[in-house]
Amino acid sequence: MTENPSPPLWIYDTTLRDGTQREGLSVSIEDKLRIARRLDRLGVPFIEGGWPGANPKDVQFFWQLQEDPLKVAEIVAFCSTRRPNTNAADEPMLQAILAAGTRWVTIFGKSWDLHVTEGLKTSLAENLAMIRDTIEYLRANGRRVIYDAEHWFDGYKHNREYALQTLEAAATAGAEWLVLCDTNGGTLPHEISQIVQDVVKANREWVMGNGEWVMGKKQLPITNSQLPITNSQFPVPQIGIHTHNDSDTAVANALAAVMAGARMVQGTINGYGERCGNANLCSLIPNLQLKLGYSCIEENQLSKLTEASRFVSEVVNLAPDEHAPFVGRSAFAHKGGIHVSAVERNPLTYEHIQPEQIGNRRRIVISEQAGLSNVLAKARSFGIELDKQNPQARQILQRLKDLESEGYQFEAAEASFELLMREGLEKRPLFFEIKGWQVHCDLVEGKESTSALATVKVTVNDKDILEAAEGNGPVAALDAALRKALVNFYPQIGAFELTDYKVRILNGHTGTAAKTRVLVESRNSHQRWTTVGVSTNILEASYHAVVEGLEYGLLLHSQAEVALNASS
Amino acid sequence: MTENPSPPLWIYDTTLRDGTQREGLSVSIEDKLRIARRLDRLGVPFIEGGWPGANPKDVQFFWQLQEDPLKVAEIVAFCSTRRPNTNAADEPMLQAILAAGTRWVTIFGKSWDLHVTEGLKTSLAENLAMIRDTIEYLRANGRRVIYDAEHWFDGYKHNREYALQTLEAAATAGAEWLVLCDTNGGTLPHEISQIVQDVVKANREWVMGNGEWVMGKKQLPITNSQLPITNSQFPVPQIGIHTHNDSDTAVANALAAVMAGARMVQGTINGYGERCGNANLCSLIPNLQLKLGYSCIEENQLSKLTEASRFVSEVVNLAPDEHAPFVGRSAFAHKGGIHVSAVERNPLTYEHIQPEQIGNRRRIVISEQAGLSNVLAKARSFGIELDKQNPQARQILQRLKDLESEGYQFEAAEASFELLMREGLEKRPLFFEIKGWQVHCDLVEGKESTSALATVKVTVNDKDILEAAEGNGPVAALDAALRKALVNFYPQIGAFELTDYKVRILNGHTGTAAKTRVLVESRNSHQRWTTVGVSTNILEASYHAVVEGLEYGLLLHSQAEVALNASS
Repeated sequence: MTENPSPPLWIYDTTLRDGTQREGLSVSIEDKLRIARRLDRLGVPFIEGGWPGANPKDVQFFWQLQEDPLKVAEIVAFCSTRRPNTNAADEPMLQAILAAGTRWVTIFGKSWDLHVTEGLKTSLAENLAMIRDTIEYLRANGRRVIYDAEHWFDGYKHNREYALQTLEAAATAGAEWLVLCDTNGGTLPHEISQIVQDVVKANREWVMGNGEWVMGKKQLPITNSQLPITNSQFPVPQIGIHTHNDSDTAVANALAAVMAGARMVQGTINGYGERCGNANLCSLIPNLQLKLGYSCIEENQLSKLTEASRFVSEVVNLAPDEHAPFVGRSAFAHKGGIHVSAVERNPLTYEHIQPEQIGNRRRIVISEQAGLSNVLAKARSFGIELDKQNPQARQILQRLKDLESEGYQFEAAEASFELLMREGLEKRPLFFEIKGWQVHCDLVEGKESTSALATVKVTVNDKDILEAAEGNGPVAALDAALRKALVNFYPQIGAFELTDYKVRILNGHTGTAAKTRVLVESRNSHQRWTTVGVSTNILEASYHAVVEGLEYGLLLHSQAEVALNASS
Repeated sequence: MTENPSPPLWIYDTTLRDGTQREGLSVSIEDKLRIARRLDRLGVPFIEGGWPGANPKDVQFFWQLQEDPLKVAEIVAFCSTRRPNTNAADEPMLQAILAAGTRWVTIFGKSWDLHVTEGLKTSLAENLAMIRDTIEYLRANGRRVIYDAEHWFDGYKHNREYALQTLEAAATAGAEWLVLCDTNGGTLPHEISQIVQDVVKANREWVMGNGEWVMGKKQLPITNSQLPITNSQFPVPQIGIHTHNDSDTAVANALAAVMAGARMVQGTINGYGERCGNANLCSLIPNLQLKLGYSCIEENQLSKLTEASRFVSEVVNLAPDEHAPFVGRSAFAHKGGIHVSAVERNPLTYEHIQPEQIGNRRRIVISEQAGLSNVLAKARSFGIELDKQNPQARQILQRLKDLESEGYQFEAAEASFELLMREGLEKRPLFFEIKGWQVHCDLVEGKESTSALATVKVTVNDKDILEAAEGNGPVAALDAALRKALVNFYPQIGAFELTDYKVRILNGHTGTAAKTRVLVESRNSHQRWTTVGVSTNILEASYHAVVEGLEYGLLLHSQAEVALNASS
């Protein structure tokens, strides 16, 4: 971390374009807008929004942003160069990119001679003209241009001279950024380092007028941009980097490029992207800012990075990677008794950064490797003072291990663990008792869809209650019936609800004999909690998790009441 | 790729020790043995099996391997140094490691002065004695020793001199490998490079006698090892590297260390490990061997790497990472019409290695971004010749997009996609028709567990059949009832079975209104296929996937019969 003003780096987010290429990911226009606005708040200067010429959904997306623009970030539209032997003005894709109405556009072109002759089936000279014409056309229409040099590193390795000519064509035409893309993802960090150094040097030489063109003499049409995107000291193209993770080195490649002189880094939130993904901005930004001293986003936004990561995964409906560096739920989780006490005493000797700096937190993990110290630490975090000598502590540990060997996993279901602990300490209040339940689903001949009916028998304060309810599925029906049965005794039950429902088949390879583990997340106005159920019967597992979710909600409510009475 | 004999590198696999620290992972002794034998076949020279002094399960594990040893790999037992102010001979942990009966042992010790004084609460000198005594004791008992320098890079940054003294202590006592561990995972590749270069240089200087100790003069007890583990040209400790992925650079860090002179690389299969995991051997080995020309494992074993990766994930019961570099299902998956045709013509211009070299394969992905060319390519792979001009092709594409917007995902359920395609071409045989089904689950007062009863009504060849069955859960009951109904018409139904069952809640944050997507994998004696179902009702979704799985199994059988008849 330097004392001098941190050198600026421009982060370019392509979650909404390259990120959406990830197998299994698909987003609506509304999803894209939500993500764009969240990234705008995060403070990344460039957000690549999509490819309006190729994806009709993106046309809508850009149009919506014209009506209701982002506050800070530049939204960028993406496109290929014109096709061979066409005029840029006659190219429908380029009309589409202009119609998107963005101040900035990114054009990608071929850098590898083989792709030009075998892929595009045109001449090397025509490819250069395609790059040049496209960029000049867009600039003549008032756009600022970023040039993505596709398959840059492979192209350079096969024909350095031609590859540099493609950059020259882009620069001569007025591109402000020359982004070197490792499109196949096969380049290793030491190669990136060498090659980027060469390009940065060549770029500077051209700038000084020693090369084939002299940059910086052209007057760039500076449009009304709120960001000082181009540093006036460098009125010439700067170098950017765009990496993919096929060699498992995307982040390291981007760092190597920055240290070799690149000033723009392209990546995606959570590393989403085609095949093995793009460089993960959730790893890149903390590395660049906290370890290498670059200035990427505001510090108070960096501390919301974890939240931004989870928000995006939720919107695109992908399970968050719990083991992700920096922002993953396990990134600062300490397992195994040995160093738990050491960590609590002196975190920086066991953690490479302070989790709070990126909005994450340290966790002590409960597991079968848990020693007594873990159980005690956990109890303390629940507000339960438990003595090491207390035999109940060992009994709880044993019960924990027994349940875990049945398939329970409390790491992700801390509310269930707290209930287990309270039971061991005889401090688990009995709000209600389930006497029995039934659920019936059928698809009757001639009907379009199934219906589900559930009946539950519950005892509250020695009173037996029988209720029935319907639902769009068996779990919904059981939840509704149970709530119906309890609401007269516990009206507060309406203040919390089930918000997430995850199912994992534990030994799926045993087919329908598999055990199912169900995690249910519930929420009231200010808290969330997770409960778990395990059974070979998926409905029984679901029901167990739902029942404990309700019980925990009632427990929280009664604790809040006690606290309120105590303070009055 | 060099023409000279490839320099050897020693791969050290710690999947069974460090890998098991991963949150959510727990393995039985039997699982560990299965994995050890698979790794033995893969050809990694060192397999770290566990910590017998700390984990009772590991005592059993090592004992089993004494009874039935590995064929090629050295199994290694792991342990800490003796505690402060104790004799090594009185240390129970060291007795345990000797009892494990391995030829090689790995000892870890503190490299960071702060950890010694604050963590161990002992003197810097005593720590050096702990390292030295432990290693000498183990060597005197006939073991060959690897020394893991814990928190090496942080220790070096804070107090280089002391850190090097800890290595000296280990080397003087006879450790054959000095492994530099980035235990916090916070070091970046350029730092690894500098620091490893410094250590390699210091090691060489000591060897030449210019430093504080003179290595190589001691006679190492060469035990009866099948592997030429120590190169006789270097009768001195060599440097190893052990990295973690907290900065998202574990693989790049290991590569940097190798290029700076390290000759042993420690990692885990699939990158399993604590927090964000260890360096992933499934990325490291291909990078080292295919790109940097090192010799790690036999070529014919490298081509089974993908299979080994999936085997391990199956044994530890974790879903494989589909986006993993090299071995992931998506690693060579091409989405989006644009370059699918280019890839098929000239793969090396779009793929950084040939997938077959590591046992993976190229896939063309079906998705909503699918163009017509993807659908045609897919049809071809099912053996269906489909003409581009055929209007049915566009209808199939539209049906695909409609279903996908409802939540269906065919990328992972190709059998369902084939059935969809056949339907569009009016080539989907009607084996049976479901007229209706019911399922009933209950937990009756006084009973221990739930029971599930299902009834199905099916029409086959215009005959109505009604059957009922029980099961340990609703899906099991439905599957059993359906099979009962069909087995008289289709006795071949007994030749295939449901083998895996995955559930994903699509918009779990809507709680019990969430749509469920169920993937079912089925298998006969030589093939596996996957089918999908989507509904808000989890049972309906499951049932749809199960029914299509049965249908596809019958389809395969009828195709096999046709082929048999044609050839006779």
